[in-house]
Amino acid sequence: MLEQYKKGDVDVDTIMTQLTSYEMADLGFAKIDLSRKARTGIPEVIFAAGKSIDQVEKIVMRMHEQHQDILATRVPQEMADILIKNIPSAIYHPLSRTFVYQPIRPVVKTGTICVVTAGTSDIPVAEEAVVTAEFLGNNVVPVFDVGVAGIHRLLHRIEILREARVIIAVAGMEGALASVVGGLVDKPVIGVPTSIGYGANFGGLSALLSMLNSCASGISVVNIDNGFGAACQAHLINS
Amino acid sequence: MLEQYKKGDVDVDTIMTQLTSYEMADLGFAKIDLSRKARTGIPEVIFAAGKSIDQVEKIVMRMHEQHQDILATRVPQEMADILIKNIPSAIYHPLSRTFVYQPIRPVVKTGTICVVTAGTSDIPVAEEAVVTAEFLGNNVVPVFDVGVAGIHRLLHRIEILREARVIIAVAGMEGALASVVGGLVDKPVIGVPTSIGYGANFGGLSALLSMLNSCASGISVVNIDNGFGAACQAHLINS
Amino acid sequence: MLEQYKKGDVDVDTIMTQLTSYEMADLGFAKIDLSRKARTGIPEVIFAAGKSIDQVEKIVMRMHEQHQDILATRVPQEMADILIKNIPSAIYHPLSRTFVYQPIRPVVKTGTICVVTAGTSDIPVAEEAVVTAEFLGNNVVPVFDVGVAGIHRLLHRIEILREARVIIAVAGMEGALASVVGGLVDKPVIGVPTSIGYGANFGGLSALLSMLNSCASGISVVNIDNGFGAACQAHLINS
Amino acid sequence: MLEQYKKGDVDVDTIMTQLTSYEMADLGFAKIDLSRKARTGIPEVIFAAGKSIDQVEKIVMRMHEQHQDILATRVPQEMADILIKNIPSAIYHPLSRTFVYQPIRPVVKTGTICVVTAGTSDIPVAEEAVVTAEFLGNNVVPVFDVGVAGIHRLLHRIEILREARVIIAVAGMEGALASVVGGLVDKPVIGVPTSIGYGANFGGLSALLSMLNSCASGISVVNIDNGFGAACQAHLINS
Amino acid sequence: MLEQYKKGDVDVDTIMTQLTSYEMADLGFAKIDLSRKARTGIPEVIFAAGKSIDQVEKIVMRMHEQHQDILATRVPQEMADILIKNIPSAIYHPLSRTFVYQPIRPVVKTGTICVVTAGTSDIPVAEEAVVTAEFLGNNVVPVFDVGVAGIHRLLHRIEILREARVIIAVAGMEGALASVVGGLVDKPVIGVPTSIGYGANFGGLSALLSMLNSCASGISVVNIDNGFGAACQAHLINS
Amino acid sequence: MLEQYKKGDVDVDTIMTQLTSYEMADLGFAKIDLSRKARTGIPEVIFAAGKSIDQVEKIVMRMHEQHQDILATRVPQEMADILIKNIPSAIYHPLSRTFVYQPIRPVVKTGTICVVTAGTSDIPVAEEAVVTAEFLGNNVVPVFDVGVAGIHRLLHRIEILREARVIIAVAGMEGALASVVGGLVDKPVIGVPTSIGYGANFGGLSALLSMLNSCASGISVVNIDNGFGAACQAHLINS
Amino acid sequence: MLEQYKKGDVDVDTIMTQLTSYEMADLGFAKIDLSRKARTGIPEVIFAAGKSIDQVEKIVMRMHEQHQDILATRVPQEMADILIKNIPSAIYHPLSRTFVYQPIRPVVKTGTICVVTAGTSDIPVAEEAVVTAEFLGNNVVPVFDVGVAGIHRLLHRIEILREARVIIAVAGMEGALASVVGGLVDKPVIGVPTSIGYGANFGGLSALLSMLNSCASGISVVNIDNGFGAACQAHLINS
Amino acid sequence: MLEQYKKGDVDVDTIMTQLTSYEMADLGFAKIDLSRKARTGIPEVIFAAGKSIDQVEKIVMRMHEQHQDILATRVPQEMADILIKNIPSAIYHPLSRTFVYQPIRPVVKTGTICVVTAGTSDIPVAEEAVVTAEFLGNNVVPVFDVGVAGIHRLLHRIEILREARVIIAVAGMEGALASVVGGLVDKPVIGVPTSIGYGANFGGLSALLSMLNSCASGISVVNIDNGFGAACQAHLINS
Repeated sequence: MLEQYKKGDVDVDTIMTQLTSYEMADLGFAKIDLSRKARTGIPEVIFAAGKSIDQVEKIVMRMHEQHQDILATRVPQEMADILIKNIPSAIYHPLSRTFVYQPIRPVVKTGTICVVTAGTSDIPVAEEAVVTAEFLGNNVVPVFDVGVAGIHRLLHRIEILREARVIIAVAGMEGALASVVGGLVDKPVIGVPTSIGYGANFGGLSALLSMLNSCASGISVVNIDNGFGAACQAHLINS
Repeated sequence: MLEQYKKGDVDVDTIMTQLTSYEMADLGFAKIDLSRKARTGIPEVIFAAGKSIDQVEKIVMRMHEQHQDILATRVPQEMADILIKNIPSAIYHPLSRTFVYQPIRPVVKTGTICVVTAGTSDIPVAEEAVVTAEFLGNNVVPVFDVGVAGIHRLLHRIEILREARVIIAVAGMEGALASVVGGLVDKPVIGVPTSIGYGANFGGLSALLSMLNSCASGISVVNIDNGFGAACQAHLINS
Repeated sequence: MLEQYKKGDVDVDTIMTQLTSYEMADLGFAKIDLSRKARTGIPEVIFAAGKSIDQVEKIVMRMHEQHQDILATRVPQEMADILIKNIPSAIYHPLSRTFVYQPIRPVVKTGTICVVTAGTSDIPVAEEAVVTAEFLGNNVVPVFDVGVAGIHRLLHRIEILREARVIIAVAGMEGALASVVGGLVDKPVIGVPTSIGYGANFGGLSALLSMLNSCASGISVVNIDNGFGAACQAHLINS
Repeated sequence: MLEQYKKGDVDVDTIMTQLTSYEMADLGFAKIDLSRKARTGIPEVIFAAGKSIDQVEKIVMRMHEQHQDILATRVPQEMADILIKNIPSAIYHPLSRTFVYQPIRPVVKTGTICVVTAGTSDIPVAEEAVVTAEFLGNNVVPVFDVGVAGIHRLLHRIEILREARVIIAVAGMEGALASVVGGLVDKPVIGVPTSIGYGANFGGLSALLSMLNSCASGISVVNIDNGFGAACQAHLINS
Repeated sequence: MLEQYKKGDVDVDTIMTQLTSYEMADLGFAKIDLSRKARTGIPEVIFAAGKSIDQVEKIVMRMHEQHQDILATRVPQEMADILIKNIPSAIYHPLSRTFVYQPIRPVVKTGTICVVTAGTSDIPVAEEAVVTAEFLGNNVVPVFDVGVAGIHRLLHRIEILREARVIIAVAGMEGALASVVGGLVDKPVIGVPTSIGYGANFGGLSALLSMLNSCASGISVVNIDNGFGAACQAHLINS
Repeated sequence: MLEQYKKGDVDVDTIMTQLTSYEMADLGFAKIDLSRKARTGIPEVIFAAGKSIDQVEKIVMRMHEQHQDILATRVPQEMADILIKNIPSAIYHPLSRTFVYQPIRPVVKTGTICVVTAGTSDIPVAEEAVVTAEFLGNNVVPVFDVGVAGIHRLLHRIEILREARVIIAVAGMEGALASVVGGLVDKPVIGVPTSIGYGANFGGLSALLSMLNSCASGISVVNIDNGFGAACQAHLINS
Repeated sequence: MLEQYKKGDVDVDTIMTQLTSYEMADLGFAKIDLSRKARTGIPEVIFAAGKSIDQVEKIVMRMHEQHQDILATRVPQEMADILIKNIPSAIYHPLSRTFVYQPIRPVVKTGTICVVTAGTSDIPVAEEAVVTAEFLGNNVVPVFDVGVAGIHRLLHRIEILREARVIIAVAGMEGALASVVGGLVDKPVIGVPTSIGYGANFGGLSALLSMLNSCASGISVVNIDNGFGAACQAHLINS
Repeated sequence: MLEQYKKGDVDVDTIMTQLTSYEMADLGFAKIDLSRKARTGIPEVIFAAGKSIDQVEKIVMRMHEQHQDILATRVPQEMADILIKNIPSAIYHPLSRTFVYQPIRPVVKTGTICVVTAGTSDIPVAEEAVVTAEFLGNNVVPVFDVGVAGIHRLLHRIEILREARVIIAVAGMEGALASVVGGLVDKPVIGVPTSIGYGANFGGLSALLSMLNSCASGISVVNIDNGFGAACQAHLINS
């Protein structure tokens, strides 16, 4: 199936392409990948959970020096306060706990990303997706609280869903929203299970399994509460 | 809240009521509870899984001698062949693997039990519910293959669902059918998760968790593939 | 089995019925389903877990403006304090963490719902069921602390159980109460596993699995600690 | 955010659009959704697992009468033999256990779908994706046996990956392939965990968790061994 | 609390006692512990699962040469046939799949071990306990099929339970039998969960968790289907 | 096997014996079983987890009025302070969080119960067993910190173990202590897995599974951290 | 910490070293990594599970043409028969299901690898380790059936263990062998949990968790039944 | 295989060797194993989690009196403050929460241990490995934040990895780092899964399963977050 590459010549080229696109800022405890956007379409984003305030602050400031746009997720309020002190024109979204510094908004793409949620409690995760997708230069349409316990809430908005290029379906509990949406539209649906619920919800496992086992084809799933990852893939689809 | 029962007198009565309703046929390895129907509304039913053909045959014949109606579930074909040889007028349903001997059909109740399935593969479990509910004297309306991957299949039959006294929703994979039905009707819905599916289905666990975490209120759940149990509860509700 | 609906005419009717029964109050982040009671027999109830105080307050006040009865579950004390300030005649039950505003009590139905608990620690979940069932217009009889470690405690109250229209059995640890009750009465039993226990209890999983695997027929199960859901189904059965 | 739809007028239109697109062939035990392709971009495909040979045969023949293209997955050899006897010009792929009848090949889209596997044992799942994607009218490029135990095998083919519109990464064991690919390209990556492996693999759970927890952004996941679902989403992305 | 042992002298004694009681027959692939009975009160018993017929045959014959009593568990029929050919006076119990060779029955102890089962399907596991306990020289009283779905079946036999020195409660499904028995008697109860059941039974996990979480004190548990282990502990209690 | 009881006469006797031994103090939310000791050999003990301070206080005071000995487990410090204020001569053990009021020590039985722990971190659970066993009138010998990472620590104390009537082996992490002890002595061993550890310990699951799968016969297991339950069974064995 | 590599020059060298060591035989469905031994110290080994006989035969014959030593694991008897027909001087070990072709035995290293098993049933896994380690040129000493149910069996062989360079401890059930060995020697211990056992063994999970939670330091673990992997690491340690 | 040891003579020697190497400091609640280093190559290290400050202080001071080097892991800040007050020249590493007192640094071994981490968040676990390995007298080279989301970060440092005697790979999320490293070097790799991540990470389970199922041979795994254990085995390999 594959044409056999000649080893000597072509490998070096292949590798060269890869290597020249690699620029790094080394902080010792962290290595900021400055060419990740060129390589993967998505710049390095700071996942703040598990990092100290001091570490995040150093990474943010180094990126700032490099004139990079900055997105940090899972940023608690006290960390945000310190970051904002350093970069007063940055914005902190407390609901989704995202920190954004992007002085020049990117050119917005043609296609839209529709973010639907089953319930009000799923909104923090949905907002992480919204903020991320907008940061990456996408036009986002939110449709919130249209879960299947009242299916007409969803049917009323079916036209909006059908006009999107890609749909992110955010739902906890039994996560049935992704399946129902997937059966109604001809667009790729990315399911985001949320940890909302209780009892045999097991921190989002019930919604995750539901979405993985969806009887509707054309659905894929990201990790529980991973609004960021869903937005990244939606962005690549929309590119 | 509770009036305190006087001990001597009332206890004995209470217990007497209980004891007099107890009749048993003892086979040594099994004790057939001949008064279970009087006590719980459901006669003793033979769960054939894990029992030898010889054991089931002995239980069936003893019940036959006692002029009891007989229902056995999880009966494999070879066991059924031997039972039918003993009681030629009995009926074996190969799809649901149920064995029924009931020479005089019971008077049928007014309310109907509606059994819906998400897909064709869920039908064996649904049929166990249908056979059981009819054995117990209920009027049953099956609505098969109306899963949420094409929600209009279900919406087309909404009137049938609304006319039932109780609904049994049988679904594998992500089990979203129970939630969607529960959001459309004002009747109790009993979810039966099935082990249909593959991958992270874990033998029906995904559908079970989905149904337990349903965002629609008024839904309860029985064990995976337990069409029999769902029919029993539906019968008690319909009584 | 099913009479084939003629497409053009009947579908529209079916859908029309559905649509005309749909009234919604849209708060942006939440869509209050004002016709849910007409459709499903149970009005929209606020599940407060995962929602901010501000969100719950807005939903409650909008429902209040619409002259709706209000039930909110999983309401922490500090949220209740604010809600009560808004609607002083509402009631907060701290044990079950439920908030109720229902100026005119509904006409009570004939049948009773009996709520039994295995132990004292199961009472908060049982109280959620009691408050919900009464809110929905049912007569409720509580029978608390009658677990199977002393089976006579249960046998002493057998008459009360037998007089109920439907029984809610609330139990943690090994959840055997549901099976034992199910073997003694001819009424539908809804099991509510609770997260009470420790060690290999796994947050109520042991009781959940016990109840799902009950050897007594006629038992169905709701999610762990879901007193609300059990009461909803009991209410539909009792209607 | 959303403009409020006027209820009377627009709802009817919305629903009408939906309903007119609904055509069904009813077999009693199954309802073939003839308008699914128009609605969701993917025609109804037969998931043969859990269905009897007789049921699948009836569904296939009804679709054949309707002049539909036919794809059936999880078809065992003995079922295929019978289907081929009915439609001799159909094709059975034994490795992926897929049955295809498509007399006129669809016009092929511009973008390509690249299907990569970690090992030789993952090929059956990958072939299900290949057959499905081609059935849906896509150009597919397979790159097999390039797992991370020898990372240069993958680096040698990096150009092929970068030229694709979307990549399906099929891997069992620890499923690291999806993460490594995701870190090298700017295309959406759909991970398909496979059940290949042993020991603490738990039927593909290890690969599933790996892919869900990928440190590379832009990756989404379908169910274990679900080559079909991955191809469906890749097709929608490529449309 | 503990008196400090003097090292030189006492340690050697301690160890000597241990060493002199150690006699072994070495077969290379297996080392038969001929002094296990002296040391632990229970002789070496052959667990045949996972061993080849050839290996078991060699172990049995070597023990026979040493004039040892022989008990082998999990012995399939074809293995038993070969063993019986070697030792015609041995006995094979097909229900419990145990092989016993014990030409001289041991003196029976005073106390009795009562083995209760919830259902007929639990009998194979119960029989493993019965055979083992009798092999070890105990008087065993079986009480079968007295599960809690009909609690009076158990109450009718309460006197027998109360007269035992120790009770083995064998139950699958929800395993409630152990709790109910534990709440009725003042004897140690050893629960044996069985893998009987289906659905969310998970191979006996539901019964195992039930018994571990029993609300009755004085209950301990052995592994799923481990009738042998329960009998061993019951024997040590009865000694 | 069982002699058939004649129904009328004997049943009443059986039940009478049971009923006359039943005395209860009803607090509404709790029913104190004053005859549990006569029936099961172990008096009602208060499991304080999940109960409010107010509830526990009421139960304790009611038992005190009835001149009962009192044992409460899982009692946090602040609850203990209030209880001690009510009954100043009671004792609180902070390590095991047990509250004891027993003005007259019971007559001590002949046999001893040996409580061994693998490590220092297992001592709180072991102390719960020690306090409970002493409360029930047993002579207890503790042997702490003799885990298998240094097997000689255990071998040095082998004589103490061999002199006990029953051994409680308390261990977290991999829980190997129970197996090693079980292979060295001819006494029943009750394993208590503890939740000590981290990582893939899963709250004591690793130790629990280890002990259930012990290769030494004669071992049974109680729930994770359930020192109380182990002591109860040890007491019944020692009685 | 790390000296900063200069990009242009050194990277190319680094990569060149890597690339020149890469030789591959491409079979389309498989890519044989002929330089894996030079790179990782272990040649490419065929994991036959999940591969068809035809695929394995092609891989083996291609390696044979390249004059490579051949090791294939998880080879069923019927596959071995065909391979032996192709290479009559190869050897098949039926117990461990390994296929070996190595005409010239490698020079044996100085240090020995000791492979200990807990029981007879663990021997197939242990033999996979023995065959692999010998294939890689190591001196192997097996010590079988020395599990902790009779700790002296192990103590008798302590000298052999202490003389090894590295120890592989193979055990199922509760896997305590690894901890006990780890506490007795100053050599690295690699634990191999086996799937031997039943009940709550969960296919080796109990032994896996035991070994991961070992209280002895210096122990690492490979996958369940992975004798091959343990031998590979032991070989690298011994090199 | 094994030469049969003569019992009388050799056993005593074997045991004597073992016993004479046993020195213990008994604190009642803890027994400090002063000869563990001589026996296992690693001195007794204090695992502070689950121990009270008072207990740890007593153990540390007793070891100090015995002129032992001291390493304590999982030491919270407040415990460290008290220990430092007792031994002012000791050092506390807050990132890894390790406490070290080692007045004379051990002679450093020739081989180096390379500790690689996937991300910044994995550093605390990696530092536990670094501190432990240095305490045991090893030369350690850290290479941090080189996860597979940017594979070139790792390829740039390949020479450092190849020069090590043994590699510890610390990674959370999907843990792919261990597999990629294992495929690039001919040194033993010890994987340390970390609990870093969220959603379906399950406290490190995803990384643990990934590493156990690694497609690269020569990798073994220690418990989640167990930097200490990895360092111990690396030390034994390096000795």
